Amino acid sequence: MSAGAFAYREGHLYCDDVRLAGLAASAGTPCYVYSARAIRGNYTAYDRAFGAAPHRVCYAVKANGNLAVLKLLADAGAGFDIVSGGELFRVLRAGGGAAKVVFSGVGKTAEEIDSALGAGIHSFNCESAGELESISTIAGRRGVRVRVALRVNPDVDAATHPYISTGLREHKFGVNVAEAEGVYESASKLPGLSLEGVSCHIGSQLLDTRPILDAMDRMLQLTARLRARGFPIRTLDVGGGLGTAYLRGEAAPDIAEFVRAVCDAAAGHGLEILIEPGRSIVAAAGVLLTRVLYRKRNGGKEFAIVDAAMNDLIRPALYRAHHEILAVEPNERTIQADVVGPICETGDFFARSREIPDAGPGDLLAIGMAGAYGFAQSSNYNARPRAAEAMVEGAAWRIVRRRESLEDLVRGEME
Amino acid sequence: MSAGAFAYREGHLYCDDVRLAGLAASAGTPCYVYSARAIRGNYTAYDRAFGAAPHRVCYAVKANGNLAVLKLLADAGAGFDIVSGGELFRVLRAGGGAAKVVFSGVGKTAEEIDSALGAGIHSFNCESAGELESISTIAGRRGVRVRVALRVNPDVDAATHPYISTGLREHKFGVNVAEAEGVYESASKLPGLSLEGVSCHIGSQLLDTRPILDAMDRMLQLTARLRARGFPIRTLDVGGGLGTAYLRGEAAPDIAEFVRAVCDAAAGHGLEILIEPGRSIVAAAGVLLTRVLYRKRNGGKEFAIVDAAMNDLIRPALYRAHHEILAVEPNERTIQADVVGPICETGDFFARSREIPDAGPGDLLAIGMAGAYGFAQSSNYNARPRAAEAMVEGAAWRIVRRRESLEDLVRGEME
Repeated sequence: MSAGAFAYREGHLYCDDVRLAGLAASAGTPCYVYSARAIRGNYTAYDRAFGAAPHRVCYAVKANGNLAVLKLLADAGAGFDIVSGGELFRVLRAGGGAAKVVFSGVGKTAEEIDSALGAGIHSFNCESAGELESISTIAGRRGVRVRVALRVNPDVDAATHPYISTGLREHKFGVNVAEAEGVYESASKLPGLSLEGVSCHIGSQLLDTRPILDAMDRMLQLTARLRARGFPIRTLDVGGGLGTAYLRGEAAPDIAEFVRAVCDAAAGHGLEILIEPGRSIVAAAGVLLTRVLYRKRNGGKEFAIVDAAMNDLIRPALYRAHHEILAVEPNERTIQADVVGPICETGDFFARSREIPDAGPGDLLAIGMAGAYGFAQSSNYNARPRAAEAMVEGAAWRIVRRRESLEDLVRGEME
Repeated sequence: MSAGAFAYREGHLYCDDVRLAGLAASAGTPCYVYSARAIRGNYTAYDRAFGAAPHRVCYAVKANGNLAVLKLLADAGAGFDIVSGGELFRVLRAGGGAAKVVFSGVGKTAEEIDSALGAGIHSFNCESAGELESISTIAGRRGVRVRVALRVNPDVDAATHPYISTGLREHKFGVNVAEAEGVYESASKLPGLSLEGVSCHIGSQLLDTRPILDAMDRMLQLTARLRARGFPIRTLDVGGGLGTAYLRGEAAPDIAEFVRAVCDAAAGHGLEILIEPGRSIVAAAGVLLTRVLYRKRNGGKEFAIVDAAMNDLIRPALYRAHHEILAVEPNERTIQADVVGPICETGDFFARSREIPDAGPGDLLAIGMAGAYGFAQSSNYNARPRAAEAMVEGAAWRIVRRRESLEDLVRGEME
């Protein structure tokens, strides 16, 4: 795996300098494990590659909003890309500065806009004319003006899973590039807004960065047209989207190389570049540890039933996503099998008809590339308490979210 | 909608005798609303149709495990089909009797088996030879014997969504019918088990009940063969699976008619029939109330952005499920639009290119058939607090799960 956070030493799988079998014995399973070193390293790769070019690296909280993840990124100097009031709450609770927060998303409520203005965030990425009006009205009520960038839909095909491709004309996101100038003109009459930026985000899990650079090119052309109309555009938000190598043999884009291409494209335009990486910072920095409960054969197929399930990691069921499955204490033997969870749905699987380590009841498996959109999308389906999360820092580790209890399941319910 | 729980009166959508606009104004949105009368009525339809035939109606808790739902079903006399220790906890907390609980599922942990034995549940539906051994061992440690039914895979195609079809040979569930007798013979040597039942469950959301009756036929043949070998089979669990009419014009199977067919098939076999309905009891008894935040056009498409999202109801994204969308205060106008949530994924939608009520910012919509696999599968994705749940009883209503707070989001996390 990239960043080298998870590797074998003398027959044991480690996260940095922590033996995962020991961690699992103590923390229990299922358990998410993150490498602080890998997360920090990936953030730093973005930040350093910009060099002296004006920039903000705003971590996309939606990928993994655990407070410990946010705190280590805040300490490293990161800004944050949020999409809800809940994410703003998380950033502030983790010690992140509101002044480094960009608020994106198509459905900001009045309460969320108001609390973001109250906290003093850096800016809003706005997705519709209606939202521009709402923000101006609420800002006016508070007697403030707030920086705003319109999210523009550059109509570039990100060529990724349809659910996470967001840059086509027919998507719910942003405003079509052809209509953008008109929207800026209308918004210029709104008193609460300072129209200083343009933004885009064409999708997630891109292994080829050319579409992002194509989108950026269209955004630079738009910037020139807006400046010609008198809008003092100072920032260009290129969104996120860098992919992770989920499949063996796939190559993730090189972060530094991509950032240099962005800087080259932006050179001479007098713009501060905002970038919103999420998955590329945390995905490879995490695994989901799980223990095999049973083995069985059905209809000529072999099944390994594990104690993690689709409620813990829904990506295989929801996106048909591939996650590598590693033995924590490998024995060199492999089997052809389905790896499935205890939930009563055929959709509850982690791998189907795949060559996996020959693991029997009690053996530990690590589901790879689980640091992004893993715990963040987890639920209590089948009344399963959510997994614990642990953070490894060198040779030490600690629980950064305790496993939910049965009492947690019914909190807030009354008969 | 079936059971007539949700209907218009003088231009207002009601749940029984409660005007939903008033409920939403007080409870906020998004909010799940359930009709106690409809839930009770659906359960009673099952129970009554059995008449004097020996039977247990075990509600499948996974469909909707809210304590208030479980309590009203327990009060009505229902048993419960559980698939986890968390669901057992919910049933007991709601006042359900352990003696009426059947424990199903492919991945029961040792802790879950032990706690179920401690509580004194009615029986286990076992899914593998390994699980039979585990249960016997744990029962032996407690010095008890427990009723067990083997879940048998009748190899009948339920012809439903692949994720919720569970009765084919190549699925993870149960034991192939051809191998069942051998498994019973082996299990008869295990001291902790009383092999008194057979069980099957071929899938969910069946609009045609013939596959269930076909499966039952195969199970009756198996019962005869097992009895001939000396196994005193007393119970036949036919599983659940009755569908709900999600699409306008679809017809859900009639509960009473289906139960009579089951009784006819079982007549003279000297069996107690267990049945495990979930969706058919609660789906049509619930809606998800949501408010429109914004309207926008993109690429010639119209979008209504609402304050509920895929974290609240994932069925459209996960199963491509159709849910009717109703105006709470209709104005007779309709539009062709996508109904989408605020989450930053193209997969966050409730309807696509559909004729829906012409609802603008502030207007309320009700997403129908949301009583099953709605809140049960909800998550905190995008750091969104989970929705409130309300129960309507005639002209009264009450909150049965309060809306989550921001503090709830980070409970158990440490920096």
